[in-house]
Amino acid sequence: VLSKFGQRVLAFPTVNQPAVRPVIDFRYGAMSADDFPTLPWKQAMNRAILRKQSQLSYSDPGGTLELRQALQSYLARARGLQCDAEQVIVVSGSQQALDLCARVLIDPGDAVVIENPCYAVARELFEAVGAKMHFIPVDQDGMRVDLLMSQPRGRLVYVTPSHQYPLGSILSVSRRQALLAWASKVGALIVEDDYDSEYRYGARPVEALQSLDRAGAVIYVSTFSKTLSPQLRIGYLVVPHGLVTAFTAAKRLMDRHTSYPTQAALAELLNNGVYDRHVRRVRRLNGERRATLLDAVQRYFGDDIEIEGADAGLNVVLKFRALPWSKERKLVEAATAASIGVHPLSPLYDRSQGRPAEAGLVLGYASLSLAEIERGIQTLAQIATRSIRPRGQRS
Amino acid sequence: VLSKFGQRVLAFPTVNQPAVRPVIDFRYGAMSADDFPTLPWKQAMNRAILRKQSQLSYSDPGGTLELRQALQSYLARARGLQCDAEQVIVVSGSQQALDLCARVLIDPGDAVVIENPCYAVARELFEAVGAKMHFIPVDQDGMRVDLLMSQPRGRLVYVTPSHQYPLGSILSVSRRQALLAWASKVGALIVEDDYDSEYRYGARPVEALQSLDRAGAVIYVSTFSKTLSPQLRIGYLVVPHGLVTAFTAAKRLMDRHTSYPTQAALAELLNNGVYDRHVRRVRRLNGERRATLLDAVQRYFGDDIEIEGADAGLNVVLKFRALPWSKERKLVEAATAASIGVHPLSPLYDRSQGRPAEAGLVLGYASLSLAEIERGIQTLAQIATRSIRPRGQRS
Repeated sequence: VLSKFGQRVLAFPTVNQPAVRPVIDFRYGAMSADDFPTLPWKQAMNRAILRKQSQLSYSDPGGTLELRQALQSYLARARGLQCDAEQVIVVSGSQQALDLCARVLIDPGDAVVIENPCYAVARELFEAVGAKMHFIPVDQDGMRVDLLMSQPRGRLVYVTPSHQYPLGSILSVSRRQALLAWASKVGALIVEDDYDSEYRYGARPVEALQSLDRAGAVIYVSTFSKTLSPQLRIGYLVVPHGLVTAFTAAKRLMDRHTSYPTQAALAELLNNGVYDRHVRRVRRLNGERRATLLDAVQRYFGDDIEIEGADAGLNVVLKFRALPWSKERKLVEAATAASIGVHPLSPLYDRSQGRPAEAGLVLGYASLSLAEIERGIQTLAQIATRSIRPRGQRS
Repeated sequence: VLSKFGQRVLAFPTVNQPAVRPVIDFRYGAMSADDFPTLPWKQAMNRAILRKQSQLSYSDPGGTLELRQALQSYLARARGLQCDAEQVIVVSGSQQALDLCARVLIDPGDAVVIENPCYAVARELFEAVGAKMHFIPVDQDGMRVDLLMSQPRGRLVYVTPSHQYPLGSILSVSRRQALLAWASKVGALIVEDDYDSEYRYGARPVEALQSLDRAGAVIYVSTFSKTLSPQLRIGYLVVPHGLVTAFTAAKRLMDRHTSYPTQAALAELLNNGVYDRHVRRVRRLNGERRATLLDAVQRYFGDDIEIEGADAGLNVVLKFRALPWSKERKLVEAATAASIGVHPLSPLYDRSQGRPAEAGLVLGYASLSLAEIERGIQTLAQIATRSIRPRGQRS
């Protein structure tokens, strides 16, 4: 009774949400309610609702001209990214941006290249549309683009060059150029998911891959879920000129357009400086969370643990030197029992290429207070020590 | 470079928006800005934004429990429709509801049955996903279900039983039963688009097709675009129990969930009686628009014209007895030149089954004032008379 898409979607492992939400949850993707710019957003939304319109009609499928221009200007000043406003397509969050790419560009059987490990919901989406997935390992310089060179075909590459999800490495300049050259050779398009580039801690700012693209091969994707709230459902793409019409027409058939009041409120905050100030504020607040987290991990874990991906973004990966990956699930369950929510690393790897040797955890910190981070890491360390000790005693 | 979906989407005829919007536009789908419950919506949205949350995390893909329960209760009291809250899936407008059906249920080549004439954006969507379309004519009792009986296969039937779009007939009870029986026999699902059932003018209220369904074959789709605003992008489906998991999982991959503040504000207005009062108010206001329209058509056109579909909804169809359909486009262009926006009927027909004999126009009136309706019809009649006269003179 279901389509192939429907069947594939049903077959994905369901994420077991614990019946009781952990008191301290290092869930990646959640944001602190205290950080949200409640008053400016409320005021902007009120003005959007009160805005005089001659009639309430469907809006432009690609987004209001006002918001597209505001985004074009924001991208130029904040990201050094050059584009025309007409290349900007407003969508209901970056997940819809990826779905738009999947719809407009991927037929069942088409080759999609993705990082290993990778962002699970992107992987599931491309698998759901029937793509043939090619997993390319990542190291400290991002995706191993050298391993792509022998690949003669590829329809689309999904990559997180500014802050590889989940491991956090930055795609090196030489690999960026090699990736663009390969894409040009085989006729592939590159989806650059720039989901958290607002957050850099001391590390050098890194240009978007899109800025190096001369061939119109890069589709840039970003979101307001990591700076405002994942609940608003607003994000955008910057697509090559040749794809604007197809993406706009597809968006119209998918849901007509993204909420008009949300677009109007966001355009106001981008244009009046409130959004830029807000980004500076949440960058500082998340910098404090990160520092607290790194300090607590150092104090409570010492050399038992390796931290990856802390130079940017809103998550880190903890790798447990003394704990094999087979113990990962037990560690997560023990933490959950102590009401600490932590999330395993190994499910983000493709199984066919083997698991990482050590247990790992992906820790998001953007929704937690400094005290919660401190207490959460302390408790986690106690639990991990109990998990590690038996092994230590046998040796 | 594009997927088959992308290629099909690009091939659709683009709707030519006039460079200058007509002063009086009988565009179907637009709503009056004056009718929108601005103050209650602003207050509800403010409370949604100020609502205390422990963190801002992704919400349930199928919609908040609060809104699903509010919709379940609304459907029971306003539509006599029985369902569990878990069967309700909240989406970003009814177009996304249809897309969800297309994704989860249709593979390329699957047979989709649709009315002729029909709602163009639904037809385009099903064509875009590669469905094999079967057009079934409609008459004064809705879709000619009898013509479906010999059809041995069918994956999905898209139908507008309460108010056929665009012609406005109501699917008769015997045809409803025959449709359900046929669907059960061939294993098809029925998508019931109940897009404007709030608007009935004297006609008997008609039960939803979903209410007659014993086999779990009907997917009920509705929207707030016709009672609040098409710009908010919120609607819902009621799906059979067996499809809840697949639809919810697909919605998560498509865009995670619909805007949380919008859901929270809508739930409040559904629960505190404001929405029900608002519906009574817009029903009255649109009843006045309809009466003005019918009266003006009678006065200015007399017997030159036949009006269809005026018993319900927010649009009527004008059929020009003395004007062949080949003159339809000229009539629309002449009206546009006089700054009256009217929209041709014939493009809503499947070409392979031939065109209707007479020129026809689809007139939506929900965005216009009574004075605009009066003036618009007067001008249209002058234009039509000029179009008709040459033919009359020849005879």
